[in-house]
Amino acid sequence: MNILVLNTGSSSLKFQIIDTDYEKIEKSEDKQLAKGLIERIGSDKADLTFQITGQDKYKKTMPLADHKQAIDEIVNWLTDSNTHIDGISSLKDIHAIGHRTVHGGEKFSSSVRIDENVVAMVEECVGLAPLHNPANLKGIAAASETFGKDIPQVAVFDTAFHTTMPEKAYLYAVPYNYYTDYKVRKYGFHGTSHRFVSYRYRTLKGLTPEQTKIITMHMGNGCSACAIDHGKSIDTSMGMTPLEGMMMGTRAGDLDSSLIEYVAHKENVSCEEIFNVINKKSGLFGVSGLTNDMRDLEAEAQKGHKRAQIALDMFAYRAKKYIGSYMAAMNGADAIIFTGGIGENGFEARANICNGLTAIGIEIDPELNAKAIRGAEMKISSSTSKVEVWVIPTNEELIIARDTFRIVSAK
Amino acid sequence: MNILVLNTGSSSLKFQIIDTDYEKIEKSEDKQLAKGLIERIGSDKADLTFQITGQDKYKKTMPLADHKQAIDEIVNWLTDSNTHIDGISSLKDIHAIGHRTVHGGEKFSSSVRIDENVVAMVEECVGLAPLHNPANLKGIAAASETFGKDIPQVAVFDTAFHTTMPEKAYLYAVPYNYYTDYKVRKYGFHGTSHRFVSYRYRTLKGLTPEQTKIITMHMGNGCSACAIDHGKSIDTSMGMTPLEGMMMGTRAGDLDSSLIEYVAHKENVSCEEIFNVINKKSGLFGVSGLTNDMRDLEAEAQKGHKRAQIALDMFAYRAKKYIGSYMAAMNGADAIIFTGGIGENGFEARANICNGLTAIGIEIDPELNAKAIRGAEMKISSSTSKVEVWVIPTNEELIIARDTFRIVSAK
Repeated sequence: MNILVLNTGSSSLKFQIIDTDYEKIEKSEDKQLAKGLIERIGSDKADLTFQITGQDKYKKTMPLADHKQAIDEIVNWLTDSNTHIDGISSLKDIHAIGHRTVHGGEKFSSSVRIDENVVAMVEECVGLAPLHNPANLKGIAAASETFGKDIPQVAVFDTAFHTTMPEKAYLYAVPYNYYTDYKVRKYGFHGTSHRFVSYRYRTLKGLTPEQTKIITMHMGNGCSACAIDHGKSIDTSMGMTPLEGMMMGTRAGDLDSSLIEYVAHKENVSCEEIFNVINKKSGLFGVSGLTNDMRDLEAEAQKGHKRAQIALDMFAYRAKKYIGSYMAAMNGADAIIFTGGIGENGFEARANICNGLTAIGIEIDPELNAKAIRGAEMKISSSTSKVEVWVIPTNEELIIARDTFRIVSAK
Repeated sequence: MNILVLNTGSSSLKFQIIDTDYEKIEKSEDKQLAKGLIERIGSDKADLTFQITGQDKYKKTMPLADHKQAIDEIVNWLTDSNTHIDGISSLKDIHAIGHRTVHGGEKFSSSVRIDENVVAMVEECVGLAPLHNPANLKGIAAASETFGKDIPQVAVFDTAFHTTMPEKAYLYAVPYNYYTDYKVRKYGFHGTSHRFVSYRYRTLKGLTPEQTKIITMHMGNGCSACAIDHGKSIDTSMGMTPLEGMMMGTRAGDLDSSLIEYVAHKENVSCEEIFNVINKKSGLFGVSGLTNDMRDLEAEAQKGHKRAQIALDMFAYRAKKYIGSYMAAMNGADAIIFTGGIGENGFEARANICNGLTAIGIEIDPELNAKAIRGAEMKISSSTSKVEVWVIPTNEELIIARDTFRIVSAK
């Protein structure tokens, strides 16, 4: 079954076509047929980049008024007689659509077939994800228009995996009515990624969910840690929004929120302006003053840039503390799994995080660690490490495609 | 040497008279001669409670216009012919004054004799502790007026013990100029308490600072955890202000700061109002909706009050995670020390925090734990626990008296 996986941003759209079915899932043989990225939707010069898997990229620039036009362009390319994708020649060869959907609130504990009610409920969560959910809704509306009602659509939520958290983990220590009246609680994000790499780890080790206590570290431009006990998320570092938790590319992560009011007062601006800064101009970028790119920061630190070094030290130290806190939360861990761009390639970051944790049973093998780059799926802990440490590339699109297939195929 | 220890709040004043010298410090024989509390300063009905150690309380209500009048009343009582305190008959028998001073910023890494420069520097830190430092300054000014220039005064800072934190622990992941321009960083508080109980632990065990890695848990109405490596604070849970960190009586502790803007918007009030709520109406009180008193909450939870139970669960769970994170920060720990009202008496809270940590080497002995109340200074971990767990009553006033004595006596 050919699934179109859509990840819609406010002015961007990423897609993949993935061919999957029960047998392919079982054998991990489901595969990506094509992918693409459209940027600057809503402008006269939208950038389109399409690619059949294993072939050269096809690029063009053109006016695109909205997400509907963007999806039409994807369909035009997919079905163009010059585009030869195995098994795809017309609109009918797309059998279902899976949408990455950021915020499902407390309503969605798993992926769900999209209907009017689902759309209404995703709309209700707009207040909790004012940047993401409206974009996701645009993607759903545009796909409905282009593909019609006969092509089923499925929403896969970033938050769903974390709905298993217990109250003691998801509640904030604020007046209880903030939760009951306004839904203020920890939701967590990157759920699809945490779920995928913990599933891959169990598959590689031949373990059932019940046999595992895992800490997953998703480290990309956004970063989050997750404690997964018996296969269920019991805590995660991102909170009501993606601001909380680990230090990230441009987000501050954990801080004393008093500083917001304090700096707003010092600069004579509104708190809202400072919230904007701690989301968009903080993290690795804010501390270093240079960039949010881990590799560039490492190069600068190597050359002696003091603030680049501080940013790297802070990043690793804060990640290290999350590992300790989740070991306390689960009474130990069997494995730590690194994923995401930094998690998969940042061997220095991984070393800085894991070094000095022998007292709690964690030791990586420097040679194995250095080898784990560019998509490698491997164990990097030493043979004597009580807790295994793994690098497992994430694949959120694959989970979205599989969930979509399963829901559409369910009888 | 008789030291008057003053802890001045905006409308209150606590004091102790402590007799100390080198020999008494060496033998832990320095003792409190008297203590007192004055509340509602600035009103027609200020409440005064004075007590000679071991004797009955003396209470009265009277108008007190300001802190100067409050201190005069203390002196009147101390030197009254009906008040018989060993070695104190006139103003001259108070040899020095030690002030609990909340915020010393980055300027003070230890206690210091108060002079005009010190007062100016404490004033500079008012922006960082707008409630506390002005009150502390009032106490210093009032004491100077009553006692004159010949009685030396010393400031002992809550923040001083934490000035050994490394950059990676004290910096927030916000634009670096927030630190350089506005002094935004983690300062930490309760330093005098963390310092005292870690010192007591070393003394009881016959260890040097270099031989220890300790996690101290100060749990009173305010709560903070501290990682003390080689005798030095390397991290602590309170931040730029006392808001950050553990769940407390009425303070929220760690949260996703986005909720402030979100709730302010929902309630159509300013962010400042929500900051007030998360400082004064949150924590144990906010979640339970009942009280910030741990013992009352435990009684209510016993009777089936769901939100009281949730508040207790959250408190313990969050404390547990701090223990794990500091074990990661220090690569293990030799001991965990509980102190403060809840830390010293809350055996249920201690059990809830420490249970389920065997995988990281922590196991308490339920019988020993149940015995450690009302000022007991004892080990409560099981004989097989890799990490020792102790209860050690704090005594911030004693540290203030000793520091004052040492500074005044230094040649």
